[in-house]
Amino acid sequence: MTVSKLQFGPRIRARNMADDALFEFLHMEIVAHVYKEQATREDIDKERVTCVSTLEAMGFRVGQGLIERFTKDCPTFKDDLDVMKFLCKDFWNTVFKKQIDNLRTNHQGTYVLQDNKFALLTQFSSGKQYLEEAPKYLAFSCGLIRGALSNLGLESVVTAEVSLMPSCKFQVVIQKL
Amino acid sequence: MTVSKLQFGPRIRARNMADDALFEFLHMEIVAHVYKEQATREDIDKERVTCVSTLEAMGFRVGQGLIERFTKDCPTFKDDLDVMKFLCKDFWNTVFKKQIDNLRTNHQGTYVLQDNKFALLTQFSSGKQYLEEAPKYLAFSCGLIRGALSNLGLESVVTAEVSLMPSCKFQVVIQKL
Repeated sequence: MTVSKLQFGPRIRARNMADDALFEFLHMEIVAHVYKEQATREDIDKERVTCVSTLEAMGFRVGQGLIERFTKDCPTFKDDLDVMKFLCKDFWNTVFKKQIDNLRTNHQGTYVLQDNKFALLTQFSSGKQYLEEAPKYLAFSCGLIRGALSNLGLESVVTAEVSLMPSCKFQVVIQKL
Repeated sequence: MTVSKLQFGPRIRARNMADDALFEFLHMEIVAHVYKEQATREDIDKERVTCVSTLEAMGFRVGQGLIERFTKDCPTFKDDLDVMKFLCKDFWNTVFKKQIDNLRTNHQGTYVLQDNKFALLTQFSSGKQYLEEAPKYLAFSCGLIRGALSNLGLESVVTAEVSLMPSCKFQVVIQKL
């Protein structure tokens, strides 16, 4: 039997919710997998550093790929600030379904991007009890930013900081070549 | 300086394209990571089997999570076929941005879902040269289907088959309990 003419049912309304969830679930799986895999290795000391850099590197490549498709038909950016604004608006909205809430700069190559409700931290309770778990859920996104910027010609160092869940700050320092 | 009132630029048009790409890139990273990690282990014989089951298990958990959010406010399904139709339409569209092209069943618990342009295979050339690479890009999705069905009360065995890229068939055999 062929069930033809598939048409959308009323359940389509739930789609957007699930749409956002796909990335979140997949990200959770990646973090869990990378940490689990590492836990079976011998050198426990290097464990944390290796996991963070593995996740950062994955984020970097995804960021590179995404920005390439994203800016395919786009005009060039007029300066670094223009690039950062694009990252905070369109790019962030695509990946995390919201914009960065606040962008600050010292006009010397340092930018602080604040997201008051960061998608990858919203699964956690907002108290302090999971605060030490936060860094492993930020590494991928630091890489994502660094990869996106790299493909736009800006080499950078990206770090993240959480003081109160689910809010977080990404600091981007552009490396002048 | 605070850059306030972030508004969408004209680049928003490129968003949908990048939207789809996020999952594809992330999936590529996961596959590459799981296979690379495994290649450093000793037992080469078990390599392929382990990688496939690792990816399948990740897909299973993501499928479970997604379907839970997805069907939160939905009426219950009237039978197995109803569940399968939902999977082929709404669920597939959310994850892979298109519907299953053809659904067949023998009315005895076996379903064949055919996707003529499967999103996770479109990066490959459509010739035969990459055909043997295909299975590793299908394991996650087999798990995704199995996880979704499992959360809807149907235990199943899901396998996939590619004869001509980027088309592929998923066979679902419902396990009667």
